Amino acid sequence: MEIDVSRPVLESNHTIAAQTRQELAEKGIFVINMMSSPGAGKTSLLERTIEGLKGELRLAVVEGDVQTSHDAERIAGHGVPAVQINTQGACHLNAKMVVQALSELELDGLDLLVVENVGNLICPASFELGEQARVMLLSTTEGEDKPSKYPLMFRQSNVLIVNKIDLLPHLPFSMEKLRQEAYKIQSDLTLFELSALTGEGLEPWLNWLRRGVAESKTRT
Amino acid sequence: MEIDVSRPVLESNHTIAAQTRQELAEKGIFVINMMSSPGAGKTSLLERTIEGLKGELRLAVVEGDVQTSHDAERIAGHGVPAVQINTQGACHLNAKMVVQALSELELDGLDLLVVENVGNLICPASFELGEQARVMLLSTTEGEDKPSKYPLMFRQSNVLIVNKIDLLPHLPFSMEKLRQEAYKIQSDLTLFELSALTGEGLEPWLNWLRRGVAESKTRT
Repeated sequence: MEIDVSRPVLESNHTIAAQTRQELAEKGIFVINMMSSPGAGKTSLLERTIEGLKGELRLAVVEGDVQTSHDAERIAGHGVPAVQINTQGACHLNAKMVVQALSELELDGLDLLVVENVGNLICPASFELGEQARVMLLSTTEGEDKPSKYPLMFRQSNVLIVNKIDLLPHLPFSMEKLRQEAYKIQSDLTLFELSALTGEGLEPWLNWLRRGVAESKTRT
Repeated sequence: MEIDVSRPVLESNHTIAAQTRQELAEKGIFVINMMSSPGAGKTSLLERTIEGLKGELRLAVVEGDVQTSHDAERIAGHGVPAVQINTQGACHLNAKMVVQALSELELDGLDLLVVENVGNLICPASFELGEQARVMLLSTTEGEDKPSKYPLMFRQSNVLIVNKIDLLPHLPFSMEKLRQEAYKIQSDLTLFELSALTGEGLEPWLNWLRRGVAESKTRT
């Protein structure tokens, strides 16, 4: 009764993701896959990011959720094209879902595509979507032990954003300890500390996106 | 290449869980399955709970994590028997893993068994473990939209504990809205609002556990 379906599924996913990556790279679009626990603030940060880059970069967003289209509606409210994927119970997006979502977006002329994955620290780590960079969000309220408890997720990420730093005075949380734990798992992490609520610390993150977009244009 | 393995896997899991449920019921042990996002505070609440029931009820804990045995060590530090299950990548516990963990515990004389599931709002909802009640934790920092975004989890829970109420003055969070959203998904929820950090609101939760234990004894 135990059939290992994970290998062919992951190989097929890899092939589709590689095609997506190439197609979007040829169009000079910088693509990021954003992942985190539920409620770490992905959509709030995205709203801040859109406002911060308004009139400068052309964005589109693919929203992944088990159910509802709340997040795509929030993004569309900022005048940015957004497609919602409902995974109907699946705990991650896959490359095929993203291809379907992209068919509903006008890609020509885009600078930055953000794919917001399902809120989960386990499943999304195994499924590449065609992104050029993996961005993880961790909220200060989640504690410093998450890198060692969810190592695959942190090891495969290029960027770690520690969100909700406005709550630091009220939490038993050590940023120094989190940094140590995170670098122990992935020494090449680019780390940002910010508050999507107050906007504190946003600019270095926006600059990182600007550089990613500029490099994507250079490569085409 | 697409093989639906979910049905036989769930049926087999159900059979094992039903056996566990019966065996533990015959011993008069109250069993709860605790679930939440990563970092919502399951282990912290468990530590508070152990201290609150010390000398009164005999507890044991099964800890589920993808990796590490930090949580079992935290629990054992309070003098309570604790077994750690590492799921090695799986995003939930299953009934078979719990049976294995139980073989390492002295069950005779126990009043309360707490199974702390892997931090995840999706996968654990589909796998019963032999519990008499499902207890969900949600942190105030996760926002009010989680019941509608993860409906299966909330619909199958008997208890919803809203943790981290000490942070309410610093958050854009409405407890009234959360209550509405939660009751919309599951009208029979028993709701507790507390802070595992400060201990505020703990007593009603402890009383609920005391009642569960007393009822389990009556049924044997």
